[in-house]
Amino acid sequence: MTSKSDTIATTSNEKLVIAIDAMGGDHGPRVTVPGVAQALKREAGTHNLHFLLHGDEAQIRPELERHPELKAVATIVHTDQSIAMDEKPAQAIRRKGTSLFNAITSVKTKEARAIVSAGNTGALMAMSRMILKMVAEDLERPAIACGWPNSGGMGTVLDVGANVTSDAHQLIEFAIMGAAFHRAVRGVQNPKIGILNVGSEDVKGHEEVREAHRLLREGGFGLNYYGFVEGDDLFSGKVDVVVTDGFTGNIALKTAEGAARFIKSLLRDAFKSSPFAMFGALLASSALKVMAKRVDPGASNGGPLLGLKGIVIKSHGGAEAWAFSNAVSVAVSLAASSYEDDIKTALAHLSEAMPPVPDPASATGKHKVVAPEAGLAVEGTKVS
Amino acid sequence: MTSKSDTIATTSNEKLVIAIDAMGGDHGPRVTVPGVAQALKREAGTHNLHFLLHGDEAQIRPELERHPELKAVATIVHTDQSIAMDEKPAQAIRRKGTSLFNAITSVKTKEARAIVSAGNTGALMAMSRMILKMVAEDLERPAIACGWPNSGGMGTVLDVGANVTSDAHQLIEFAIMGAAFHRAVRGVQNPKIGILNVGSEDVKGHEEVREAHRLLREGGFGLNYYGFVEGDDLFSGKVDVVVTDGFTGNIALKTAEGAARFIKSLLRDAFKSSPFAMFGALLASSALKVMAKRVDPGASNGGPLLGLKGIVIKSHGGAEAWAFSNAVSVAVSLAASSYEDDIKTALAHLSEAMPPVPDPASATGKHKVVAPEAGLAVEGTKVS
Repeated sequence: MTSKSDTIATTSNEKLVIAIDAMGGDHGPRVTVPGVAQALKREAGTHNLHFLLHGDEAQIRPELERHPELKAVATIVHTDQSIAMDEKPAQAIRRKGTSLFNAITSVKTKEARAIVSAGNTGALMAMSRMILKMVAEDLERPAIACGWPNSGGMGTVLDVGANVTSDAHQLIEFAIMGAAFHRAVRGVQNPKIGILNVGSEDVKGHEEVREAHRLLREGGFGLNYYGFVEGDDLFSGKVDVVVTDGFTGNIALKTAEGAARFIKSLLRDAFKSSPFAMFGALLASSALKVMAKRVDPGASNGGPLLGLKGIVIKSHGGAEAWAFSNAVSVAVSLAASSYEDDIKTALAHLSEAMPPVPDPASATGKHKVVAPEAGLAVEGTKVS
Repeated sequence: MTSKSDTIATTSNEKLVIAIDAMGGDHGPRVTVPGVAQALKREAGTHNLHFLLHGDEAQIRPELERHPELKAVATIVHTDQSIAMDEKPAQAIRRKGTSLFNAITSVKTKEARAIVSAGNTGALMAMSRMILKMVAEDLERPAIACGWPNSGGMGTVLDVGANVTSDAHQLIEFAIMGAAFHRAVRGVQNPKIGILNVGSEDVKGHEEVREAHRLLREGGFGLNYYGFVEGDDLFSGKVDVVVTDGFTGNIALKTAEGAARFIKSLLRDAFKSSPFAMFGALLASSALKVMAKRVDPGASNGGPLLGLKGIVIKSHGGAEAWAFSNAVSVAVSLAASSYEDDIKTALAHLSEAMPPVPDPASATGKHKVVAPEAGLAVEGTKVS
């Protein structure tokens, strides 16, 4: 199906341009350029890709020389300004002409269909909001979605860190955007949606989740709504998309990461504890490597900032080339799909059926967030 | 130090009576009686213990005959009524004379110093509140604390499921009760306290956590306050006690449990994937068993319901005898300590310094919970 707006799904012949903040992340062009090259190899069969590499030509050029296939479809957009990983977002957004600023602007001007950055999350978030604007008036800041390995493959969880609290209307917006994202990137036509809660019965939880649950069960908004899910369902694969406020989502994500690291260190200790165990680990090592890949955060790298008028993908700051290439693939999948039209239509329907509360900070039951960037959980750190 | 109130810390000669809901849990006396016997063996050197076994004498007696050491210090308090695991709390609390009702009442009448039940959490919570009452007027329902394995040993996390939202005052009450619990049960004199948040800077998070953070940093309330911690710090051992609202705490707990189960199943698949890996797992099996014990929920079994005028310990419903014995040991440690006096004094200081908001449901920024048991996340399921 091809829509008629300016965000139509591409066909395989149409040129699909992706903007890259080549200077972002802990390693800059040394990782971003080979990462884009890997993504190109993976995606070239399906899409006619072109890349705008924003950043310092003197650093990008030598990396590009090592990847002739990429060189053939890439344009360097030179700037000698970039944003430090620890730079304050408020300061960073005032500096026009940085690689990040230029990369986001190229989406605004429609030179590119999506932008990928491994840079400072706070700056990426603030600058994207400033340049691209939000798609819905009650969304204060974008929701960050992340891939979450589960027993069915890979799920989507949002918000994992942008919005500290969310009312029912915002949770439904997350559900709409999360479903469209999951469909575009994971290829599931009608993804099952769950709202994260402390129990599955209708009476469980606070007003916001119960209201969103009621509305989704009644109205549906075209979604395949399953109902409430609990923390362990993040891994069970019972639903494809888990919706929650950014406070809970961020804590769940970091708890899961902490659990994985803790178990890994216990496992390492166990294997070191005796010669038998060490030899056992050696025999099982290739199987263990396959397993490690399954829970490697790099596999799910590429967290979209949802709710912006434009596709913005955040990569882990410390991502290596393979992980960065996965973030680029997420951008390609989203940009090549009807994702933007899907959410535009669905959000318009929601807005008609249920107009948003004009000032979310004064909405019933909401926590107040005083400092403008107070909600930003992932500033300058990895997203997923 | 011995206090003069009726909740003094016991000396080793003083008789310490623990009430047991022998009928609670998935297995009843078949597990509770041997569990108490194991706890007695562990604790008898330090304490002069006596047990009131509430329940059906015909079922308890034959189990007791197998444990002569326990038989010598146990009294069966017969009743033929008990509460089903799936019975609605509202219905259960109306039935006087059940084993759970009698067990809690024996704490109220001071026949026993603590009560342990593996029964229906909702009924335990509602009945404890009804019979024993809360220690502070703004506490609507008890907070559930749980043991959490971390790289330093075993931490304490609360609330993991009773209160859906908590204002700053309640979070500080949790900090006070959590610290007193950790001191009594884990033997750490001055446990480090952290508040769970989405970042460590003062501006991060919503109003409730920032207000509690500010007050704890300024006032201290006699606590060793560290500051904000994040989800992965639940495992890092950076602090001993992590304080959060029941919604977030319950989701973090279930996320961690889900992560552990998911990794375990991946590990099982990895070991089954080739003959080499299978042989490797066999060689490493004893080391892996040691590791599994470390993250076995049974090791941290025994979640206290904090904030009641009396010591109430919830065991997993599905606990086996060893896990149940750990819950009994938690009850013994708490009952033998100055825990109750500690929190009474500390909460009185808090109340002077900062009077609680009379109606918590109308407090700024709070989610509204309409249904009376809506917040009860763990009704009829395991606590930790």
